[in-house]
Amino acid sequence: MKKIGNQTVVFDNKISILETASIVGPKEADGPLAKHFDKCLEDEFWGESSWEKAESKMIKEAVNLSINKSKISIDDIDYCFAGDLLNQCISSCFGLRDLGVPFFGIFGACSTFAEAISLASVFIDGGAGNTAICAVSSHFCSAEKQFRFPLELGNQRPPTSQWTVTGSGSLVLSKEGKGPYITSITTGKIVDMGIKDVNNMGAAMAPAFVDTLIAHFKDTGRNPDYYDGIFSGDLGYVGKEIAIELAESKGYNIKENYNDCGVLMFDKDKQDTHMGGSRLCMHAEQYFQDYYLMSLRIKILKKS
Amino acid sequence: MKKIGNQTVVFDNKISILETASIVGPKEADGPLAKHFDKCLEDEFWGESSWEKAESKMIKEAVNLSINKSKISIDDIDYCFAGDLLNQCISSCFGLRDLGVPFFGIFGACSTFAEAISLASVFIDGGAGNTAICAVSSHFCSAEKQFRFPLELGNQRPPTSQWTVTGSGSLVLSKEGKGPYITSITTGKIVDMGIKDVNNMGAAMAPAFVDTLIAHFKDTGRNPDYYDGIFSGDLGYVGKEIAIELAESKGYNIKENYNDCGVLMFDKDKQDTHMGGSRLCMHAEQYFQDYYLMSLRIKILKKS
Repeated sequence: MKKIGNQTVVFDNKISILETASIVGPKEADGPLAKHFDKCLEDEFWGESSWEKAESKMIKEAVNLSINKSKISIDDIDYCFAGDLLNQCISSCFGLRDLGVPFFGIFGACSTFAEAISLASVFIDGGAGNTAICAVSSHFCSAEKQFRFPLELGNQRPPTSQWTVTGSGSLVLSKEGKGPYITSITTGKIVDMGIKDVNNMGAAMAPAFVDTLIAHFKDTGRNPDYYDGIFSGDLGYVGKEIAIELAESKGYNIKENYNDCGVLMFDKDKQDTHMGGSRLCMHAEQYFQDYYLMSLRIKILKKS
Repeated sequence: MKKIGNQTVVFDNKISILETASIVGPKEADGPLAKHFDKCLEDEFWGESSWEKAESKMIKEAVNLSINKSKISIDDIDYCFAGDLLNQCISSCFGLRDLGVPFFGIFGACSTFAEAISLASVFIDGGAGNTAICAVSSHFCSAEKQFRFPLELGNQRPPTSQWTVTGSGSLVLSKEGKGPYITSITTGKIVDMGIKDVNNMGAAMAPAFVDTLIAHFKDTGRNPDYYDGIFSGDLGYVGKEIAIELAESKGYNIKENYNDCGVLMFDKDKQDTHMGGSRLCMHAEQYFQDYYLMSLRIKILKKS
């Protein structure tokens, strides 16, 4: 690998996404992306006695599913990089305690999945191993309890609030494979503009996303139009607009090919989630990956 | 780098610890290691209005101090790997928000510092950068509040309980330097034997430490006597004894050259910390590094 510019690393190997797996809750299953998930739950508990246990089960099963789909032996997996939103990352720690794979616990809040992919890619490209699992989870009910108010209180949600996705995503990264490939990573800095409203996370996160995105453009010498698709993780409608304006003020027009996964996740008019989903599989506030072949595939889809 | 055995990676470059910095609280300053710390605080607040803010200030100042001592420019630092014990890693996130260095948030509980060094070493050896900061913090008062009971309750502490260190450690790793060197890492798996007593963390963590340690011996083909010193992070007296017995039951005698930083941290007879400190700078339950030159130095000290 080679560092280019200030924050970007370009890989020598083609780090391939072998397989992915996703499990989501009932609200996500009602949304426009439903058909893309491997499993949709009928309720938020999935037979468990607490939301936290349900979240643990989701990440465990998502990891197992991604391993099964990739048809590799668990013994051939060198590392697992995982994290979640809960205190002390309990859903990933408890969910994956029987995995038996060397484990790195990480916490990047909404950027955890991209962080996992970044770390795993550096490990694989550097030769520390050939295969790694990246996994994250979140749960609307456990997240509300953790970050805002217990659901039992029945608090009203302000218009800028988002709806944390109940779901878990896992993927298997490998030195061998037919893509899509992780070709480079850009690691973000902490950008904190002082937003303290827990019900307006989009505004809090957008500046970090734009800062990392522009660092990526500068380091690679590319412009937004190089990409078929640029995605942030969970800025929601408010954060997405802020991101577009902020990028524009710095001379980058991302209007044409940028979208936010939180916006894509739910149907705003029908699903009453206010400003869109929070924390989907692809988080990119602080980390930005260049899914080169993924964008190529999008191009193919566009043309056909 | 090259992976050897199941869990170990040996580096091609000599990843050097350029400088370290540590700041501790008043109880640690009364302990037998006092003279080794850069700064000892007179009280647990350090002029802040909460323990959490004091912890944030500690990690911020420890990082600044390690950078100043190493005489490198902040612009030359490629990454920061940091974490702590609090919910959503708030002390490291808030403490380091103005650092302006690409940031990876990690959570390995008591193994966070070793995890940071592992990740940073792979990044540097692989070529993703030349210099990285690793930093962690913990605070007795914020940790009790987080994991057991608020101090104001005045709960009695059972005999197996440990005393979380109030302190922060930071080090600067570099591709260039005169050592001590990180020559290899062994990444641990989650090992959970089902201990649920929050006042007996040593027993909960010891099996993971021994599992990783033995993986390290097997992967490298070495025995305990290869090392001048083997250190676990914060198993305390109970955990240390368990670790020694457990290793013995697997055919490894670590009695001669093994110690625990939690045991070393406080004077058991004078300081009323029960089973020793918890969470010092060197955590090694789940990650085990081979501080080659560090152990050589210990040898030199022994002989002189």
